[in-house]
Amino acid sequence: MAIKVGIMGYGNLGRGVESALLQNPDMELAAVFTRRDPKKMTIRTEGAKVYSVEDANVGKADIDVMIICGGSATDLPEQTPKYAEYYNCIDSFDTHANIPAHFAAVNRAAKLGDKVSIISAGWDPGMFSLNRLYANAILPDGHDYTFWGKGVSQGHSDAIRRIKGVKDARQYTIPVETALERVRGGENPELTTRQKHTRTCYVAAEAGADTAQIEKEIVNMPNYFADYDTTVHFISEEELKRDHGKLPHGGFVFRTGQTGWEGEHKHVIEYSLKLDSNPEFTGSVLVAYARAAYRLNAEGKSGCHTVFDIAPAYLSPLSAEELRARLL
Amino acid sequence: MAIKVGIMGYGNLGRGVESALLQNPDMELAAVFTRRDPKKMTIRTEGAKVYSVEDANVGKADIDVMIICGGSATDLPEQTPKYAEYYNCIDSFDTHANIPAHFAAVNRAAKLGDKVSIISAGWDPGMFSLNRLYANAILPDGHDYTFWGKGVSQGHSDAIRRIKGVKDARQYTIPVETALERVRGGENPELTTRQKHTRTCYVAAEAGADTAQIEKEIVNMPNYFADYDTTVHFISEEELKRDHGKLPHGGFVFRTGQTGWEGEHKHVIEYSLKLDSNPEFTGSVLVAYARAAYRLNAEGKSGCHTVFDIAPAYLSPLSAEELRARLL
Repeated sequence: MAIKVGIMGYGNLGRGVESALLQNPDMELAAVFTRRDPKKMTIRTEGAKVYSVEDANVGKADIDVMIICGGSATDLPEQTPKYAEYYNCIDSFDTHANIPAHFAAVNRAAKLGDKVSIISAGWDPGMFSLNRLYANAILPDGHDYTFWGKGVSQGHSDAIRRIKGVKDARQYTIPVETALERVRGGENPELTTRQKHTRTCYVAAEAGADTAQIEKEIVNMPNYFADYDTTVHFISEEELKRDHGKLPHGGFVFRTGQTGWEGEHKHVIEYSLKLDSNPEFTGSVLVAYARAAYRLNAEGKSGCHTVFDIAPAYLSPLSAEELRARLL
Repeated sequence: MAIKVGIMGYGNLGRGVESALLQNPDMELAAVFTRRDPKKMTIRTEGAKVYSVEDANVGKADIDVMIICGGSATDLPEQTPKYAEYYNCIDSFDTHANIPAHFAAVNRAAKLGDKVSIISAGWDPGMFSLNRLYANAILPDGHDYTFWGKGVSQGHSDAIRRIKGVKDARQYTIPVETALERVRGGENPELTTRQKHTRTCYVAAEAGADTAQIEKEIVNMPNYFADYDTTVHFISEEELKRDHGKLPHGGFVFRTGQTGWEGEHKHVIEYSLKLDSNPEFTGSVLVAYARAAYRLNAEGKSGCHTVFDIAPAYLSPLSAEELRARLL
């Protein structure tokens, strides 16, 4: 019997989850829940249903795990606590500062309904967090570094789109190669925001727009661009669609540390991701944690969890014996 | 109250564990157990005791976790099952083919004594295994690659030392840079043993020894060298000690995979270690898993575990709340 999965929200991430499910024969998509009109929506998986979100209320049968694919700003803070009472729920909540509050709200609901939820299960937070934890536990005396990119930041792209005269835009976050090399070489450098990443923007402006003014507004935008070296390229809308239509991302997590009686031995732990599709990779992580949530709940566990609380074996379709024989 | 740790065996690895314990204020070395004469041995940790291995029998008080620092060939298959009944035990058993049997023997003993053991907790098996598991669970459609080095292989160094006319030797395993680049580039190459690693040997020969013959014996040695491109350098014993006295190691674990409706998006997950001291890093991993074993046993768990079975949070001295706030 395959694990029956519901997808809440059918944007890029929801479709990423759907395609990931097709790669995992022990799991299947049971239904997509949408705020749009279900009758007007088609999905890729044969046999799976499309329901209105309204239908997700109180214990829809035949959903073992619900993967909630909304945004962290407004969707997830409302949806995950709402559904965690009725379903094992997974999300990729990524507003770091609000994780404690989100955890508490989801935990209350999941405990109430005897369900397991796992929040913040993507790659950062998610796989990057795991690597920070393992590396910190092994090398207590050391330094952490996280770099992002090269990849598209949707938040930064959106910020540019809100500028007057901009039709569309795509922003790439790019780690500074020399900074990576200094960290990798064990120098333990102190790096400013500007020294770690650069930002490159491709902008399609409206006809007759003041591009000099747009560029000025971008590079001086507080929080988003002012602290970075930012390059702006104006291109046509067609070029933007053709050359920058994908959502690649990735990054690097380092811990550099020392051991020995006098810290005389240096060690570098490096984890990196190079992803052609951010939503499909994130969807793949969500699916692996959906398997874990289902199993934990079947063992009688309940409440909210993060990637830190899940023994790795729960993520794999292989048995403990197979894992020890093949991957240990 | 600090977690009280025993070290069984005081070679390179045992000393690596001792120095790691000094970096972890929530843990302390209680005693070293040795096959040598305890009276003739001095250790670095003030206040810690030195006992004979004989004293480890049946439930020595004041040891919360025993870290067994013997070799995988003969020590660990005997020692870990022997002590797992009386102590929470950790080892770094690394003979991959014998892990199922070792697991079964340790599990029986640990269950009998209501203790928790964790076997094969180093970096390979250990951290590399974890990365293989996570990456396989996320990208079911893909390829695995593990490379070792640049680093000293003690097994290969020992094999050279057994050749007639050799006084001392040090062997480095070196990953082939072009192979790494092909994997990193997502080519999914099929790589032969020879294409993945080269071997470089530094040999101090006895006076008057037939170096041509020694070199021939090395490069043609089955299993160890015959399948590799091997380079042999003859140097003096002083040079060997001066320039090759350390035990660096490391390596790379990759998973390359694809997602999407037609596998159109490629992803590369890479984990790498660059270690100045193999035994001190391995010792640091063992100490983190000793913390986990102690906590699991305090929760009432028993039996044999591997890194696959341990939720990451158990490795860290931080609370769940601190972990979520700082590392997620």
